[in-house]
Amino acid sequence: MSDEKKAERPQRTTRAHYRRFTPVQTRWRDNDIYGHVNNVVYFEYFDTAVNAMMIEAGALDISKGEIIGLVVDLRCSYFASVAFPEKLDVGIAVERLGRSSVTYRLALFRAGDNDAAAQALFTHVYVTRATQAPVAIPDAARAVLESLR
Amino acid sequence: MSDEKKAERPQRTTRAHYRRFTPVQTRWRDNDIYGHVNNVVYFEYFDTAVNAMMIEAGALDISKGEIIGLVVDLRCSYFASVAFPEKLDVGIAVERLGRSSVTYRLALFRAGDNDAAAQALFTHVYVTRATQAPVAIPDAARAVLESLR
Amino acid sequence: MSDEKKAERPQRTTRAHYRRFTPVQTRWRDNDIYGHVNNVVYFEYFDTAVNAMMIEAGALDISKGEIIGLVVDLRCSYFASVAFPEKLDVGIAVERLGRSSVTYRLALFRAGDNDAAAQALFTHVYVTRATQAPVAIPDAARAVLESLR
Amino acid sequence: MSDEKKAERPQRTTRAHYRRFTPVQTRWRDNDIYGHVNNVVYFEYFDTAVNAMMIEAGALDISKGEIIGLVVDLRCSYFASVAFPEKLDVGIAVERLGRSSVTYRLALFRAGDNDAAAQALFTHVYVTRATQAPVAIPDAARAVLESLR
Repeated sequence: MSDEKKAERPQRTTRAHYRRFTPVQTRWRDNDIYGHVNNVVYFEYFDTAVNAMMIEAGALDISKGEIIGLVVDLRCSYFASVAFPEKLDVGIAVERLGRSSVTYRLALFRAGDNDAAAQALFTHVYVTRATQAPVAIPDAARAVLESLR
Repeated sequence: MSDEKKAERPQRTTRAHYRRFTPVQTRWRDNDIYGHVNNVVYFEYFDTAVNAMMIEAGALDISKGEIIGLVVDLRCSYFASVAFPEKLDVGIAVERLGRSSVTYRLALFRAGDNDAAAQALFTHVYVTRATQAPVAIPDAARAVLESLR
Repeated sequence: MSDEKKAERPQRTTRAHYRRFTPVQTRWRDNDIYGHVNNVVYFEYFDTAVNAMMIEAGALDISKGEIIGLVVDLRCSYFASVAFPEKLDVGIAVERLGRSSVTYRLALFRAGDNDAAAQALFTHVYVTRATQAPVAIPDAARAVLESLR
Repeated sequence: MSDEKKAERPQRTTRAHYRRFTPVQTRWRDNDIYGHVNNVVYFEYFDTAVNAMMIEAGALDISKGEIIGLVVDLRCSYFASVAFPEKLDVGIAVERLGRSSVTYRLALFRAGDNDAAAQALFTHVYVTRATQAPVAIPDAARAVLESLR
């Protein structure tokens, strides 16, 4: 990449930039025809890590809860490829916490690597399941998010 | 289901029918609109467990190996639903081992359950990557498979 | 494959064995590291073709309907590989129609090919969404299924 | 969303901002537990549209080509939800064309809608398959890209 191109990309982060880590199991189908995990699949990992964290904390009921989080904006930069059957970790932190929305800072690490293979910003807006109108982040979720700032 | 229908389905198996177990991490995207893991995804779990086992044993090189295993036949019966973020196990055994093909007996178990949530038969034929002509199962793979009978 | 192995596989079918055809668009991600559509993905095609047919006929409401169809049993035999960006067709017919369950006969065809690349039997049981207890197939769905025998 | 949040999001685009449109077939599995296409799946649509365009133009050989395009950076903003079995279109244009990299401007439209349901920037770097070192965009690919500016 040209210097110009590089200049636009965010600084590559390390594990120290994240507050919590979730192990990720890769799958056979994650690899694409080029032999590495397809760029799309990184978001399956991120979605899984964030939602599992909230469910385990009792802050999200995906089957019946009246308030859910929807992704409205994301960006991701890729620095190194990963491949099944590698073991990976998702790093999670909170970049910005608003009344009804939260922007996560997320990254994917190869086991044993300190530099992110990819890193993302991921904005969830909390809405009512029925009308999809934005609502204040519920207290239980906010408590989890505060701990990740 | 009618009695007739039930009669055709295989007997539900338990953990005792399998020789090896691989933990499976479910993902957010595995759940479909009905709130459970979509029937398609079970095969992602099975593919992953079988191939990871072979790769770890040094019996399969998915990037450069000249001999690979292709699925030619499978069947699956579903007994109970599972859902993200549950933890699951894949049970693996070998049902039939031929010169160039192997039929796996596979099952999916919910953590702590003894009865299979689903069970499958899965036939791999070993072929050359270049011509897809059947070849004898390589010795390293055969050693793994013999241990699972 | 040995003759013994071949003998167990069902006879390869042609377009004449199916009553209705649905075009399928392959995706980049359907190809796996071996360069062909992964065996798992065939079931995404089948699920899509069957459910789209029912939704278009007004016989299934996946968001709010009280009665839904769940896959309880499937088998699939693979005869030839397919790959993105090929265009494919799913062939649909009804093999057996019971009170609460239907077994579809499904196949995947490459555009212009008369022989199935893969063929499957796929059993749906109709259940109430809330309790997952089997119920009689609703009239609107039964009318669609009768037309496919 | 707060005004502050809204201010950061890009302006919602319309069909007039794109040069080429590719129809997208949704799949049963695209819908997640919330009943809409999961945010991850939008990238499957984008990947598919861009790669199919290049393959059809003879500008990319995904099986054997020595030069391939890898995603290094993407961002996506979501404005409205979509759901299986809707028909969708991907709009494609080129935002920036460098020596070895191209940034696509992509959007997803519901059939008949003029406003984007989601829009993305997607940067591909051309590399050699063997070493993943950046190379100049090949002439055949550059010709396609020039036509989309």
